[in-house]
Amino acid sequence: MELLKKRILKDGIVINNSILKVDNFLNHQIDTKLFNEIGKEFKRLFEGQTIDKILTIESSGIAVASFASIHFNYVPVVFAKKTNSSIIDENVYTSKVHSFTKNTDYIIRVSKKYIKDGENVLIIDDFLANGCAALGLIEIIEQSGANVAGIGVVIEKIFQGGREKIEKRGYKVNALASIENFDDNKIIFK
Amino acid sequence: MELLKKRILKDGIVINNSILKVDNFLNHQIDTKLFNEIGKEFKRLFEGQTIDKILTIESSGIAVASFASIHFNYVPVVFAKKTNSSIIDENVYTSKVHSFTKNTDYIIRVSKKYIKDGENVLIIDDFLANGCAALGLIEIIEQSGANVAGIGVVIEKIFQGGREKIEKRGYKVNALASIENFDDNKIIFK
Repeated sequence: MELLKKRILKDGIVINNSILKVDNFLNHQIDTKLFNEIGKEFKRLFEGQTIDKILTIESSGIAVASFASIHFNYVPVVFAKKTNSSIIDENVYTSKVHSFTKNTDYIIRVSKKYIKDGENVLIIDDFLANGCAALGLIEIIEQSGANVAGIGVVIEKIFQGGREKIEKRGYKVNALASIENFDDNKIIFK
Repeated sequence: MELLKKRILKDGIVINNSILKVDNFLNHQIDTKLFNEIGKEFKRLFEGQTIDKILTIESSGIAVASFASIHFNYVPVVFAKKTNSSIIDENVYTSKVHSFTKNTDYIIRVSKKYIKDGENVLIIDDFLANGCAALGLIEIIEQSGANVAGIGVVIEKIFQGGREKIEKRGYKVNALASIENFDDNKIIFK
């Protein structure tokens, strides 16, 4: 998506050849006009597929998923909640996710009421890096008996291996901007 | 807002005469069609006012603010981040917020880059209860030299005193559904 790539080049800041800061338009300040175009692009990429629901993860996935929903005929958005607590609640699906950035594990939860057997669920998130968050969402959908209709991410950092892990599980990833690598803190798109 | 009140009566669950669970459509599963109407209603309530930016707080304020933005000509949305850490960073505005639900304090942060002196900032959130989160956002706007253009919330629980505190600070609150009280776990709208 050219508009997005241009914006990343304009406003993205690379730190230590591994972190891309895009809080100017993506995950602290939100450029909602751009997000609407992002939603449109996801619709184009998953055209023809039945999507009953969009699943994302708090916090920065929520706005992306919301704008995508508009273009998927306003299907409901469900966002997984992050928590450190390991209290067992039989009314929720859970999955453990490792955060490399914070070097800690957290549990994500989705109420069993909101993902149902047989539904076609599209996963949407802002970033795909090592894939842990996306795999956590996949596990929750698998537990529920619903189908993973696809995985759509705004920005992918290919060199961190997330796509490979997800494709090995048999699912398809669509990224709007794929970063091959950082070279001297410069962004190299695929 | 009649559509919203009907939905609260249909899907809201009151616990212990104090907590209203609306995770069916508001803060876990999101009914984006309803959220679009909510955004439209905020526009109607703040009609004629100059709004340069919408400020909200993660996580459940993000979708509400995003849909509001569409109807305010796609002004940027900024969401304050919650953290427990008290590391001092001179590039952010911070405010301490007390959570009555979790009986703990947390710090909210907004980068100084995204709220500027002289801007007209509309605060949007999902709930107004004791007002601590909204007051935290007000403090951040005041620190920045921007103007609080107003406070819009989806659901207000009047009996928890948030509105009173905010009005004492000289700001106006608009709520789309105002709950006077719970009576035997039944919802009494104002």
